[in-house]
Amino acid sequence: MALDTIRQLLTLDDRYVEKVEQIHSEWDGRIFAVETLDVRLSDGSYGWREIVRHHGGAGVCAVRDDKICLVRQYRVALGRMSLEIPAGKLDPGEDPSVCAARELEEETGLVAQSIEPLAVSAGAPGFNDEKTRIFYARGLSQGSARPDEGELVDVVWIPIPDMVEAIKAGLIEDAKTVISVLAVAAGIV
Amino acid sequence: MALDTIRQLLTLDDRYVEKVEQIHSEWDGRIFAVETLDVRLSDGSYGWREIVRHHGGAGVCAVRDDKICLVRQYRVALGRMSLEIPAGKLDPGEDPSVCAARELEEETGLVAQSIEPLAVSAGAPGFNDEKTRIFYARGLSQGSARPDEGELVDVVWIPIPDMVEAIKAGLIEDAKTVISVLAVAAGIV
Repeated sequence: MALDTIRQLLTLDDRYVEKVEQIHSEWDGRIFAVETLDVRLSDGSYGWREIVRHHGGAGVCAVRDDKICLVRQYRVALGRMSLEIPAGKLDPGEDPSVCAARELEEETGLVAQSIEPLAVSAGAPGFNDEKTRIFYARGLSQGSARPDEGELVDVVWIPIPDMVEAIKAGLIEDAKTVISVLAVAAGIV
Repeated sequence: MALDTIRQLLTLDDRYVEKVEQIHSEWDGRIFAVETLDVRLSDGSYGWREIVRHHGGAGVCAVRDDKICLVRQYRVALGRMSLEIPAGKLDPGEDPSVCAARELEEETGLVAQSIEPLAVSAGAPGFNDEKTRIFYARGLSQGSARPDEGELVDVVWIPIPDMVEAIKAGLIEDAKTVISVLAVAAGIV
């Protein structure tokens, strides 16, 4: 019933839809591309939108003894070290749950009996189509990590209450990681 | 003590830092720009990184009677309708809390007695420097909305438990909104 209300609010509404009249390819990289769109609004006026196109990613929330499994790494885009749940980029058409399980094992050596959808994170829907599918891992057992060549990863387990404090203090910013920690803290997994 | 451990893990570590040797400006738009970086890793090898540069944004988590205030809008990047907390883009150098309070009032007519930092959301730190600062609004009173010209906004209030279900069902994907809902559900505000 409640979900029906939300579904209805999310149904395409002609007053809001921006019709794409023309797509201009602006830049094409290895991991994302840039397009500009000529759009027509319902009042007949025209607009212009800048969009990043990316295949998206998948991440895994793995928790044991009220601690969450994180990978320590450097993020050159942010110019800082970061603690994030294990995650990776999707290949085009790849099943996100397969990608998530693979990244978990490669980066941490953890094998999950099952992984189930927890949430989706669209980080900047105003201009970026990138989505990260977040999964929750059940039935963890420890194998050995097999990082990609040149990939330097440190695995750490941090108590959920400490992560909540770190989020409030602005130390943890990665959206998929913030969402995972808060979902566990809220008891919805 | 616990935060000290996390701070230490986030201290720059020479083994991980990627030194930017050269920045190439690839594309320059109105709301973001694209750079590629030549980076040097600690083992002496070289890499290449594609980065989106954006000034970031600010959003407001406004809750009354266990319902969260959301704006209904169309997101052409995702090709779908979206329900998101009130938010807007930062101007360069703008105070995020000022931006957040302004967007709240413009989009919803709500005035907050105070807004305090709740979390930061970096949606795709692997290639995008965009961060949204999320604030929690206290002492809400209702004025009248003043949307920007051409901005069509619908304000809706949705119960937090319904939003949690919608997140688990993948209906709500916007990272700043997922984070706000889960923070309220976890009782950390």
